[in-house]
Amino acid sequence: MTAPLHEARPTANGRALPDTQQGMRRRNLARVMHAVSAEGPLSRAAVASRIGLTRAAVSTLVDELVRWGLLEELGPERPSRVGRPGSALAVSGSGPCGIGAEVGVDHLAVCAVDLRGEVRARAVRHGANRGRAPKPVVDELSALVRRVAADAEREGLWPAGLAVAVPGLVARDGHTVVHAPNLDWHGTDLGALLPADLPPTVDNEANFGALAELWLGDATPPDFLHVSAEIGIGAAVVVDGQLLRGKRGFAGELGHVPVHPEGPDCACGGRGCLEQYAGEEAVLRAAGLETREEAVLRAAGLETREDAVGLLARRAGEDHEGVRRALHDAGTALGIALTGAVNLLDPETVVLGGALAGLAPWLLPSLETELAGRTTGPACPVTVSRLGPEGPLLGAAHSVVRAVLDDPATVAERV
Amino acid sequence: MTAPLHEARPTANGRALPDTQQGMRRRNLARVMHAVSAEGPLSRAAVASRIGLTRAAVSTLVDELVRWGLLEELGPERPSRVGRPGSALAVSGSGPCGIGAEVGVDHLAVCAVDLRGEVRARAVRHGANRGRAPKPVVDELSALVRRVAADAEREGLWPAGLAVAVPGLVARDGHTVVHAPNLDWHGTDLGALLPADLPPTVDNEANFGALAELWLGDATPPDFLHVSAEIGIGAAVVVDGQLLRGKRGFAGELGHVPVHPEGPDCACGGRGCLEQYAGEEAVLRAAGLETREEAVLRAAGLETREDAVGLLARRAGEDHEGVRRALHDAGTALGIALTGAVNLLDPETVVLGGALAGLAPWLLPSLETELAGRTTGPACPVTVSRLGPEGPLLGAAHSVVRAVLDDPATVAERV
Repeated sequence: MTAPLHEARPTANGRALPDTQQGMRRRNLARVMHAVSAEGPLSRAAVASRIGLTRAAVSTLVDELVRWGLLEELGPERPSRVGRPGSALAVSGSGPCGIGAEVGVDHLAVCAVDLRGEVRARAVRHGANRGRAPKPVVDELSALVRRVAADAEREGLWPAGLAVAVPGLVARDGHTVVHAPNLDWHGTDLGALLPADLPPTVDNEANFGALAELWLGDATPPDFLHVSAEIGIGAAVVVDGQLLRGKRGFAGELGHVPVHPEGPDCACGGRGCLEQYAGEEAVLRAAGLETREEAVLRAAGLETREDAVGLLARRAGEDHEGVRRALHDAGTALGIALTGAVNLLDPETVVLGGALAGLAPWLLPSLETELAGRTTGPACPVTVSRLGPEGPLLGAAHSVVRAVLDDPATVAERV
Repeated sequence: MTAPLHEARPTANGRALPDTQQGMRRRNLARVMHAVSAEGPLSRAAVASRIGLTRAAVSTLVDELVRWGLLEELGPERPSRVGRPGSALAVSGSGPCGIGAEVGVDHLAVCAVDLRGEVRARAVRHGANRGRAPKPVVDELSALVRRVAADAEREGLWPAGLAVAVPGLVARDGHTVVHAPNLDWHGTDLGALLPADLPPTVDNEANFGALAELWLGDATPPDFLHVSAEIGIGAAVVVDGQLLRGKRGFAGELGHVPVHPEGPDCACGGRGCLEQYAGEEAVLRAAGLETREEAVLRAAGLETREDAVGLLARRAGEDHEGVRRALHDAGTALGIALTGAVNLLDPETVVLGGALAGLAPWLLPSLETELAGRTTGPACPVTVSRLGPEGPLLGAAHSVVRAVLDDPATVAERV
């Protein structure tokens, strides 16, 4: 899954760099940033040896990165190290930061992450967004963004970009929400509603959740399938460390893989889709608990996703027979759908994230039984994300940070 | 699906080129080759304008490529063209060629393809290979390879490499056949059995079939799912013009996607896999025709894949009720499995290749009904490969040719 030799290599933000001296310099700036980000603090000599350039070449690049405020010098290294002491370089804790935002069905959240990957400011607002028009929701989100940006600026940071996670299909243009059934938003240009001073990127929450797992997870490999849930079930496919987006940007719709082809009708137009067996509504109904739809009908209860997941986890922990059976059956359906996905994609691992992470103890046994029972040889291992529902928000903020690390020269014109 | 900016870009044969002057020169040599290959004959000036380098820079690169025998000068362009006439450049019809080979269940085939993409020599040997030990089969294949290489050499070509297509799972090492159920080969190091003077690459026939479709198909887009069949059902996923191989090299096992999870047991360890409904044995059995297994038991009939497919196509064309119904049901099962695959991968199109291409008239109606009926909005279009069963052999030979176009400098040491 590598670009042909003769094609110019696009950056994280999709622009192709020409294969010229200037392009080479920009790529080498990125190599220095990534080396220090991954292993710093490092001396110039250590950076040079890691990326295979001369110390003189690295020094020129480092001087530029320090001038732009992306790297900082910590002073001489400790004398215990071998060789002539050099000034240790670290990624700057001030300078550009990434603003991540999340439109949830029951909440809005925004955070600022610095180049070191630390969350430096955040804000959350609870309240149902389902069925509300996009504009008032985005206006509230924009107010949170401004508050978080102001907090970050007080800490010496400036926002390099804004990335917004939404529970729905997003076009590859990076700003149009094509279909978000649980918000009832369709064909919404979110980019036009967001603050104009911060060029925003909009993406599916499952995609940002998977990227968070790739960048922040515990030893997450570069080839994996990330399965998550808010109300629907989403997935994202990561291959060689890159997100597989699909032609229209709609890849990863695991929730609409047929599990029992003659099963119940699904809103997607299909029948017997995974969501009919393992989606939140289906599990609550199978467990004999009140569904979100029923709660909305009597205008009460189950206001947030955490409530539904928390309720299921609590009842399962209390040995509630109906809940346990419902989660067991949901795990079986997940295992069948994942067998197909694993056969198609051959990932190194499957990661359960989002709301599914909190239910993993009750989903995993039947899920793994299906996956192992339908495979010759070792079954694909299934792990549980430690990021859980935090994944999409963190992934959004980190996507802005990664874009700076991947092409540091883009900030030059802004400092 | 692009490599991060800071990583060295691997070539088609997997070696990473350092991002240095030398690497840049090699990439620019590749750009020149690809420009002339795609649009030639072209003058040096036309190449320069297409790839965005100066005419002087292009001339230096062209001189090298002509010296290596990869490009040839056709003499001055026709005077009708605008501007000062230049010598037109074309890809050489002599020089390096790719040798492709195919181990089929019922045949062996080898061909030589020149840099222009023309088949210049070929040889086929019919006869059942199922259950034979790998060594005698590969010895026969090697004899065919030597014959085709000798034929090619008489035409002024020299083999730049050998690529072998096999009906089975191949490890990412490019030489170990992990599991080829229809040959009964398991854990076979084919590389060690093939001619040592031609560094061979071994890959799954479905992968080579998909690459052939990508490189030689009629307007095939860079994002598609290629579904093919010999006896089993295979698929290959192409994303941004690159094959998705999976962690172990096993991606594309569409034949083992569960269609009816409680269906009949499958040799893969699963139940109700697509192959149980749309594989050759299943279709022959459902049609009331003699299966390959039955034919083998009485040591007669159905010697080649073409026989089975040809028989089904002929009977379907004669309105044989059982065959038509069997193919209709196989199309339904394919449609269910493809619905899941399309939801996961969001390809631009699905291409039916291999043996399936010949049965498309009878498979497509029910297949497309499922795909459309299980999707909201426009269903993913399904097209039929014009390469059909020729795909894997052509894809293998062209993979060697593409490796030369992608990094022409590799031939420098051999001319």
